[in-house]
Amino acid sequence: MSTLEQGFFTEENSAEVVTSQIAATTEPRLAEVISAITRHLHAAVKEIEPTQDEWMAAIKFLTETGHKSDDWRQEYILLSDIFGVSMLVDAINNRKPSGASESTVLGPFHVPNVPEMSMGSNICLDGKGHPMLIKGRILNTDGNPIEGAKIDVWQTNDDGFYDVQQKGIQPDFNLRGVFRTGSDGTYNFWGAKPRFYPIPDDGPVGKLLRSLGRHPYRPAHLHYILEARGYETLVTHIFDPDDKYIQSDAVFGVKESLLAKFDLIEDPARIANEGVDGPFYEVVHDFVLAPSS
Amino acid sequence: MSTLEQGFFTEENSAEVVTSQIAATTEPRLAEVISAITRHLHAAVKEIEPTQDEWMAAIKFLTETGHKSDDWRQEYILLSDIFGVSMLVDAINNRKPSGASESTVLGPFHVPNVPEMSMGSNICLDGKGHPMLIKGRILNTDGNPIEGAKIDVWQTNDDGFYDVQQKGIQPDFNLRGVFRTGSDGTYNFWGAKPRFYPIPDDGPVGKLLRSLGRHPYRPAHLHYILEARGYETLVTHIFDPDDKYIQSDAVFGVKESLLAKFDLIEDPARIANEGVDGPFYEVVHDFVLAPSS
Repeated sequence: MSTLEQGFFTEENSAEVVTSQIAATTEPRLAEVISAITRHLHAAVKEIEPTQDEWMAAIKFLTETGHKSDDWRQEYILLSDIFGVSMLVDAINNRKPSGASESTVLGPFHVPNVPEMSMGSNICLDGKGHPMLIKGRILNTDGNPIEGAKIDVWQTNDDGFYDVQQKGIQPDFNLRGVFRTGSDGTYNFWGAKPRFYPIPDDGPVGKLLRSLGRHPYRPAHLHYILEARGYETLVTHIFDPDDKYIQSDAVFGVKESLLAKFDLIEDPARIANEGVDGPFYEVVHDFVLAPSS
Repeated sequence: MSTLEQGFFTEENSAEVVTSQIAATTEPRLAEVISAITRHLHAAVKEIEPTQDEWMAAIKFLTETGHKSDDWRQEYILLSDIFGVSMLVDAINNRKPSGASESTVLGPFHVPNVPEMSMGSNICLDGKGHPMLIKGRILNTDGNPIEGAKIDVWQTNDDGFYDVQQKGIQPDFNLRGVFRTGSDGTYNFWGAKPRFYPIPDDGPVGKLLRSLGRHPYRPAHLHYILEARGYETLVTHIFDPDDKYIQSDAVFGVKESLLAKFDLIEDPARIANEGVDGPFYEVVHDFVLAPSS
């Protein structure tokens, strides 16, 4: 019998010895996942060749990341985020046909059951920040308008905070809205120009970011969930391409196709026509939904 | 500019986008380790293609593994153990020249400052279990005896528990001993036949083992730390090859070269000669220390 048949460990056959212990009766998907994790983990260890002290530092980091997590703070999701794993899992689960809008991560700040508003409403309830008009169309991959598409949008205020992070400071449901398209597939509403903001960086993940010379910021964006009967639900953002963090999102949520244009409108005729007090930002962006499979 | 140069995420270039954010000023070893972890992690995710639910199950598992860990229980070390990672790190850090005894993991039950005993002493202080004589030589790779080698040995009792797990039941320092070789390099002492025992399996790691059809047991063994001036310190075990778990150590600590022979001696002349009451076990095992580099 070879060493492997006997199940005895060597540096060379380490991964095979471990995976050989998975019972044949194991649920097939679990066996597949654990085998793959084992192989890649051993390959990483063999490339890195950690010292015992480095191994112990990893054990401590993983433990502290668990200890930082509770019902309100999920440090392991942050860790997944800053390694680009959350985005990769999102990408794998949301491959879109050519021409359809791309997805990005949901993030932790979505709120269900936001009241539906009529087109043209202002989701900025406290009137703070720079007024911003957002408009465009919801289309299918043939370029035709989708009627009855539900647009669920949420964004930070001018200080980079969501309403749920500033209860008592921002009005409830501030900068959140739900809209539904008519037969022409168009949408338009008012908000306030969003700002970049940091992910929580007072834990082990923040410490890791600093040690890598990375900042904790996400570039300014609006979040969307777009739903329509007969189409795949799209969870995405649109980003301000002029944000100083646009090329270094701490969670890698930016895709090239998610860059919108945030135009500052200073034309007095347009200002008068929209009925605002002064210059405003305008974002014109179409979304294309993939047919449901 | 390409998408990569802009730092924007695609499924294909995901790992490169993440590693490109590591600052040039980062401590080189940290940058190397985090880059390697990122590449292998993304390769694993791309092979596994986890669903969002599977990803969330992984987040929860890692969080619970952290929550189970405290000053007394280190569930992340157990996780490293049952994936064979602890053994692999040990192997990488303890490559031995041809002919030298191999290492295995230290484990959590070593106790410092055990009193030194004279050769021939019995480390089984409560007289329980099957008497066992352990003897052999400490040699260098030329086959010559090493004088003044320190032998630090510890083992479970007949019930599979170390003294520190049964305070008040076993005497302090039960089944632990420190010995020092004379000019002939030989050693001999008495103990009790050790038994297999489970790693702690009441946490997430135990649950994972069960879901993989794996048991939590380690086959019976004696632990050693062997030290001598001019030689590499050797942390190792010797195992009972007849243990029912010898081919399935939960932590993969068994190497072929660490199998000893546990002989049951029933010859009345030998029994009388050793001055014991009846049959006893005998383990004859030489250790070969590598020169320090």
